Amino acid sequence: MKRALGVCYYPEQWNETVWEEDARRMAELGLTYVRIAEFAWSRMEPEPGRYDWDWLDRSIETLGRHGLKVVLGTPTATPPRWMLDKWPDMLAVDSLGHQRGFGSRRHYDFSHRGYRQDCAKIVTEMAVRYGKNPHVAAWQTDNEYACHKTVLSYSEAAKSAFQDWLAQRYQSIDALNRSWGNVFWSMEYRDFSEIGLPNLTVTEPNPAWVMDFRRFASEEVVSFNRLQTEIIRKHSPAPISHNYMGQVTDFDHFDVGDDLEIATWDAYPIGFLSDRGFASDAHKRHFLRQGDPDFQAFHHDLYRAVGARRSGKDAVGGRWWVMEQQPGPVNWAPWNPDPLPGMARLWAWEAFAHGAEVVSYFRWRQAPFAQETMHAGILRPDSAPAPAYEEVARVARELKDLPDVAGTKAHVALVFDYKSDWAWTTQPQGRDFSYFRLAFDTYRAFRRLGLDIDILPPDTSDLTAYKIVALPGVATLTPAMKAALADYKGLVLAGPRTNAKTEDFATPIPLPPNLPGLQATVARVESFPPDVTVPLALGGHFKHWREKVESPHTVEMTLDGFPALIRQGNVHYLCGWADDEALDRIVTSLALETKLKIQHMPQGLRRRTSGDWTFLINYNPHAVTHDGITIPAADVHWSRS
Amino acid sequence: MKRALGVCYYPEQWNETVWEEDARRMAELGLTYVRIAEFAWSRMEPEPGRYDWDWLDRSIETLGRHGLKVVLGTPTATPPRWMLDKWPDMLAVDSLGHQRGFGSRRHYDFSHRGYRQDCAKIVTEMAVRYGKNPHVAAWQTDNEYACHKTVLSYSEAAKSAFQDWLAQRYQSIDALNRSWGNVFWSMEYRDFSEIGLPNLTVTEPNPAWVMDFRRFASEEVVSFNRLQTEIIRKHSPAPISHNYMGQVTDFDHFDVGDDLEIATWDAYPIGFLSDRGFASDAHKRHFLRQGDPDFQAFHHDLYRAVGARRSGKDAVGGRWWVMEQQPGPVNWAPWNPDPLPGMARLWAWEAFAHGAEVVSYFRWRQAPFAQETMHAGILRPDSAPAPAYEEVARVARELKDLPDVAGTKAHVALVFDYKSDWAWTTQPQGRDFSYFRLAFDTYRAFRRLGLDIDILPPDTSDLTAYKIVALPGVATLTPAMKAALADYKGLVLAGPRTNAKTEDFATPIPLPPNLPGLQATVARVESFPPDVTVPLALGGHFKHWREKVESPHTVEMTLDGFPALIRQGNVHYLCGWADDEALDRIVTSLALETKLKIQHMPQGLRRRTSGDWTFLINYNPHAVTHDGITIPAADVHWSRS
Amino acid sequence: MKRALGVCYYPEQWNETVWEEDARRMAELGLTYVRIAEFAWSRMEPEPGRYDWDWLDRSIETLGRHGLKVVLGTPTATPPRWMLDKWPDMLAVDSLGHQRGFGSRRHYDFSHRGYRQDCAKIVTEMAVRYGKNPHVAAWQTDNEYACHKTVLSYSEAAKSAFQDWLAQRYQSIDALNRSWGNVFWSMEYRDFSEIGLPNLTVTEPNPAWVMDFRRFASEEVVSFNRLQTEIIRKHSPAPISHNYMGQVTDFDHFDVGDDLEIATWDAYPIGFLSDRGFASDAHKRHFLRQGDPDFQAFHHDLYRAVGARRSGKDAVGGRWWVMEQQPGPVNWAPWNPDPLPGMARLWAWEAFAHGAEVVSYFRWRQAPFAQETMHAGILRPDSAPAPAYEEVARVARELKDLPDVAGTKAHVALVFDYKSDWAWTTQPQGRDFSYFRLAFDTYRAFRRLGLDIDILPPDTSDLTAYKIVALPGVATLTPAMKAALADYKGLVLAGPRTNAKTEDFATPIPLPPNLPGLQATVARVESFPPDVTVPLALGGHFKHWREKVESPHTVEMTLDGFPALIRQGNVHYLCGWADDEALDRIVTSLALETKLKIQHMPQGLRRRTSGDWTFLINYNPHAVTHDGITIPAADVHWSRS
Repeated sequence: MKRALGVCYYPEQWNETVWEEDARRMAELGLTYVRIAEFAWSRMEPEPGRYDWDWLDRSIETLGRHGLKVVLGTPTATPPRWMLDKWPDMLAVDSLGHQRGFGSRRHYDFSHRGYRQDCAKIVTEMAVRYGKNPHVAAWQTDNEYACHKTVLSYSEAAKSAFQDWLAQRYQSIDALNRSWGNVFWSMEYRDFSEIGLPNLTVTEPNPAWVMDFRRFASEEVVSFNRLQTEIIRKHSPAPISHNYMGQVTDFDHFDVGDDLEIATWDAYPIGFLSDRGFASDAHKRHFLRQGDPDFQAFHHDLYRAVGARRSGKDAVGGRWWVMEQQPGPVNWAPWNPDPLPGMARLWAWEAFAHGAEVVSYFRWRQAPFAQETMHAGILRPDSAPAPAYEEVARVARELKDLPDVAGTKAHVALVFDYKSDWAWTTQPQGRDFSYFRLAFDTYRAFRRLGLDIDILPPDTSDLTAYKIVALPGVATLTPAMKAALADYKGLVLAGPRTNAKTEDFATPIPLPPNLPGLQATVARVESFPPDVTVPLALGGHFKHWREKVESPHTVEMTLDGFPALIRQGNVHYLCGWADDEALDRIVTSLALETKLKIQHMPQGLRRRTSGDWTFLINYNPHAVTHDGITIPAADVHWSRS
Repeated sequence: MKRALGVCYYPEQWNETVWEEDARRMAELGLTYVRIAEFAWSRMEPEPGRYDWDWLDRSIETLGRHGLKVVLGTPTATPPRWMLDKWPDMLAVDSLGHQRGFGSRRHYDFSHRGYRQDCAKIVTEMAVRYGKNPHVAAWQTDNEYACHKTVLSYSEAAKSAFQDWLAQRYQSIDALNRSWGNVFWSMEYRDFSEIGLPNLTVTEPNPAWVMDFRRFASEEVVSFNRLQTEIIRKHSPAPISHNYMGQVTDFDHFDVGDDLEIATWDAYPIGFLSDRGFASDAHKRHFLRQGDPDFQAFHHDLYRAVGARRSGKDAVGGRWWVMEQQPGPVNWAPWNPDPLPGMARLWAWEAFAHGAEVVSYFRWRQAPFAQETMHAGILRPDSAPAPAYEEVARVARELKDLPDVAGTKAHVALVFDYKSDWAWTTQPQGRDFSYFRLAFDTYRAFRRLGLDIDILPPDTSDLTAYKIVALPGVATLTPAMKAALADYKGLVLAGPRTNAKTEDFATPIPLPPNLPGLQATVARVESFPPDVTVPLALGGHFKHWREKVESPHTVEMTLDGFPALIRQGNVHYLCGWADDEALDRIVTSLALETKLKIQHMPQGLRRRTSGDWTFLINYNPHAVTHDGITIPAADVHWSRS
Repeated sequence: MKRALGVCYYPEQWNETVWEEDARRMAELGLTYVRIAEFAWSRMEPEPGRYDWDWLDRSIETLGRHGLKVVLGTPTATPPRWMLDKWPDMLAVDSLGHQRGFGSRRHYDFSHRGYRQDCAKIVTEMAVRYGKNPHVAAWQTDNEYACHKTVLSYSEAAKSAFQDWLAQRYQSIDALNRSWGNVFWSMEYRDFSEIGLPNLTVTEPNPAWVMDFRRFASEEVVSFNRLQTEIIRKHSPAPISHNYMGQVTDFDHFDVGDDLEIATWDAYPIGFLSDRGFASDAHKRHFLRQGDPDFQAFHHDLYRAVGARRSGKDAVGGRWWVMEQQPGPVNWAPWNPDPLPGMARLWAWEAFAHGAEVVSYFRWRQAPFAQETMHAGILRPDSAPAPAYEEVARVARELKDLPDVAGTKAHVALVFDYKSDWAWTTQPQGRDFSYFRLAFDTYRAFRRLGLDIDILPPDTSDLTAYKIVALPGVATLTPAMKAALADYKGLVLAGPRTNAKTEDFATPIPLPPNLPGLQATVARVESFPPDVTVPLALGGHFKHWREKVESPHTVEMTLDGFPALIRQGNVHYLCGWADDEALDRIVTSLALETKLKIQHMPQGLRRRTSGDWTFLINYNPHAVTHDGITIPAADVHWSRS
């Protein structure tokens, strides 16, 4: 299929006299898609019920006249000020009880039924008016659900919806009490109306209560989104997308994906690295102006899987875009360095190599006012080309000779499960335990061997296509996954904390991991601080977490005499959180056993196969020679394998 | 007397079909005491006024049938949800004004008079029903007063009670204004009803106001507890205890002790060390799976003194238990490592060596649900023995040949004063000043010499039994203590900050320390950050704090030319917070002068005399040879002296 | 003119029997001024409308009888408790919505119109009664505006006043929407009454909104102060002062200065250094008991300029005092070390060298009660002389042979702009960007060359007296400053971030810096963390911040190939935040070009010219020999040039 470039554009922010020239330059630059309108509610409906579509009609028309395709965003992430007069209680409430005010964006509570009504109204208006507009090529619902910690709200609206959700789920209060173990500490309820939200408790709330609240909150996002997609679909044949934000796990992206034709995500590699708590200072320094060399790839692979939900295709066939690609410094990270020359091109090519249909930059022209004054665009505020301009132009030229980057099924699969992130955030048992980091560590280990990886949702029911499947930290295996594992002949790498919880968030009895084909019992777990590790007899260490497992099938030990790795048949269970040295060793041995062709990649150089092309992507600030090929700093090299 | 083992058990959390088997195994393991019921209010009184005692009757009967003795807890730390409908304002309020909600435990305000009524009611019901039950061997009131920062509440209930308390204390508002120095910054009140609580002030509140609030809050705990003990005593001959939590200083444990026959405390050595701010990383690493080698001993000696309050006996005769002994990893510390094999036994023997009557493990079986899912028990969640099981069994066997560990009067005494902790928390004058740490530093110095220590309350009136008495940082000497010091012939080690405040929390004039028999004036004090020290001429340093003292009796100087140690007759005054090197030197010299037999103990090895037995306790993760005896890692050795 | 010493005194805090003796000792010590009454409202007006002036009459009379001159403070920083009954909503509200309570000081909202009325009343009473009292030599309004973060309040009173202020400023809501760029994120308002305060927003609020709130809040302080000065001036010929607090930038001190004859500030050198986030640990250790060697000088030079506002004189002629001079340890810093012997004298002489009319110590006698119990005075709490006593006496003797320290016009000027601090706090774009620190870095670089510096307000219209003018980080150049720069022939050192914002807080187009006579465009900026720097080709580095500037006039490059310094004619633009090494090099070259006589000063030794005297001030804890002169630790040396 044809890959393309795009850009985010805000016609309402500029004098109409420049629209024509902007559109002309976009087309000239080689852009195909232009996303608009997602923050323009106050211009679409300046007063309750009074709509003004003229400017938007003209804007779409102007873009279309230049051959550009419009992605039309619903504006529900930024309700106008007048909406607050109507629904003073529509604002979300933080965990300390503070109502979060008007004056930025995402100032709404997913659970507020009144606000949902008004969202349905504006979306209906848009869908009816633009649903069949020939220039409207796709839709976007809202903007970056969950961004700015907006999924969990401790409002009256959320409490009431949560009580209803619980009543629906448990049917009887006794069932809930039993499921949560509320006999503990006399927490038993007599009626669903007695149940509050799990904030401001004296000490830790019941983790089962928290987990249900997390599930509920995620489902609120899903139903909020579905309300919009059902309306749009009634009136428009164009595919519907949402732009997920990177490293956000507060709702289940797979579940939202069920209602979308296209998954898109917003890729800010340098902002994410600056903002990431767990990267070391040395790592952040080395990749300061490039971003982490695995972080974007992880999300590309993740959203490829999210994009496959609705069509039912497997991970290869998922439709996905980068909807917002960082083109220069951003404004929101702790520090905001300028990307190295070449990165704006490199990031695009990396996305295409992973299967993106479209890479769309954020934003066309840097705004001289308001919150994103310091966020770079393809143009400077004075309309002169910013550094990214020429890089985008180059990508556009290169796309004409686009190598055939049709999807490649990887041989390695990693299961990624949003609910597990909630589980281990709810009950980390060690201050720095992070499911995301554990999964990402595993992902990086395979990448260091130059391997492609598919990311799979936790309800995957067929694993036969893969030679290796890793599922570290998946808290509760789904019935589908258990069945798939029982049938699977490839190598499984599970643990630590895999299948450690029941659906009720209790400890399973028999004790974990209860993996098909593996005789093993996690008799005890321990966590320890970052300056302590447990050395493994064969090299490397456990960090943060170790499990004392009883099994007759131990194949590797810790130096202090406990099992480190269990293996029975094709199933491995890793008894702790392995560091890079240990992971490299273990993952290499799995790859060799399955006869995967591996290459030990130098620091910052990554490899991605796409169709019969191989991409080498150099995130380093210096040139790297690998396999006889020299790739300059911040550059990408492709060749037919 | 006969020492014994016990366990905490929650029959309401398990299917009744396993009670019998549980009781049988407890008895078989060698346990004597079983604490139950302290969190079971929702099962005792499922709805207001409707009681269900049957299950508890049967539970006690089952345990008793196997020869086990029951410690019965009042359930007032966990009022059921329906209590909130009755008293919506019974919840405590934190210093930022947030009401602390239902859904965990300790969700009540000590000052709420309505809740107190309902506590009296349930306690009366229990006392009447079980007061003379032959299996009920002891009572426990509530659970871990103060845990989760529950002593200080900024509620309306607290404000109103505080105003009454102040009116009672000062009688006239002018007296209060004078005592607090309210002329300063125009803070004068015209009526007690004008006085609020000392939170959310623009800058520091008057420290005298804060200190009175601390005293008031502590007395609220005392009267809350006394309400229960008076009821129980009316109906039951069994002794009454409360389980104090370690390193908690928010109320005066001695004052609560006045109303209890037995002091107990909850010993979580590894949790405490992980959670302790001031321990160095190296120290935490070395003792990661053992706990601090002095921390438990300190509390044992402290609660021996608390346990002596009601009987009027001296520190040797105090009745005390460990009510909750960590048997494996806990769930609540920043990190939760697994204890080294041997520690569950070592901790028990250390407690017995210090005089404990009973060591009771928390808990029998690990729960598979709710907040403490990850807290180990003697049994695993699947009822298999956890690692502690065999260690407990061994202690039970060893207890049969129990060495005579009858109490030993120590030669060294350390005065510990809760009010001083409030004083220096209220006015640290240097960010990291900590009374607890100062007292503990001194305690450890004596322990490093292999000496036994008695901890004394601040109102002690007779010191004659001791050769050395240390009272660092005791903010205000009581009249009793002053009289005792005036008569005392042994060596006194005072300072820094000893007797630095009047009862009104003012600076005394003449200036401190005003110690009997010591001519000295603290002319000035200074605090400094952790990376600065003041070297002493004879070795070691002052850290955090130094006082410039004028005295003709200086016996040691700092290198920058100020007095470091004053001595006149038997009284020493230390002019700063001495580091370990300086303390070792000074304490050794005191011990030599008083002809105490000392031994410089290796790191992590500690010595305790009990009767004519000497215990050597090895907290190290490796064997230590001392005095010709090799003690394995995490082991204890005893021999007749 | 005659320089003099003073002290702060609280007669209401002491038994009247000691007043006479206190006054006698003050005079004997050589003090001239005594500031009183600024916290005594509850004694002046014990109940609403009932005044008690007798004690104050007697107190002034007693001081006057001993030849002392009184500085009379209005007590509006400490309204009595009864004021709250009248105006329960007069308390300020913090950014999280917590009302800040009674019980310390500054518990009022600048925007509360009712409280302003009552301030006018008490000030009128005082001005009428004491306006012509022969002993009243000066007035002080309130106390330390802004201290304890009291400028920004999120109260209803502030919201309502802010809406009025906006309506006044913008006249139409459309004008405001355009100015702020509210089309962004649909933030458009339909009426001024819809505008709230910029706290508790979901993510970053519009920076233009925040900046207007900052301007408004500063103007509230100005008008609050002016209310008092207008009343006092009606009744009294004595000059009016306010005591500004060091390192406070939350309101524009120059604007308040327009209404005052004398600027004073409160100098706590050791407290400020302990409290200062950005000083390195090594620096803090070295100057632990002395304070930063440039910090006081900076404020002296700043307040000399503030003191010149009302008279219209230039910076040399500004009247200013140190109203509160630290004499020993304070009570409020993170740590509170004791000053080295000599510092209480050194600080006074440094102030005189910079032109102070009066240095007044805080306080006469250390209080034994209330919040400042641990704050040293000239006397100890027991009335014995504290260490500062003899140092003050020595200064008093030395003042008799006072060298002629009449003002010296410096050759170097630094523009300091409070609004720029608000600008870069509102939009730092890098976590540790600090305008104050950037300006202070530049100030220190000139000081390290032994140069005198004048600090200038941002509306300065004549720069001709200076050879070098530095204006780093001034966000928006005033029309006056732009005109002055256009005419200026000396060397200009601008950048980074100079003139980077319009008055509307937008990015200017053409892009910055738009400096007269300089062809240059800031095409892009970047920020980076503290462990990253950008090396300059000629030595030194950029830290925190770097700009990519397009200009044909580049004279220096970074090692990574971008302009580091632009120079066209007399105008330099520095393209980043230079470290000390780079600044030293650049500033030295500027000084040499303008033929300024420079001396590279050793660490901690500073030089100040005053009239034809040169002062050498040694902040080191050791003696320093410079230019053949040995200055002992913590000492000052003066000689006629």
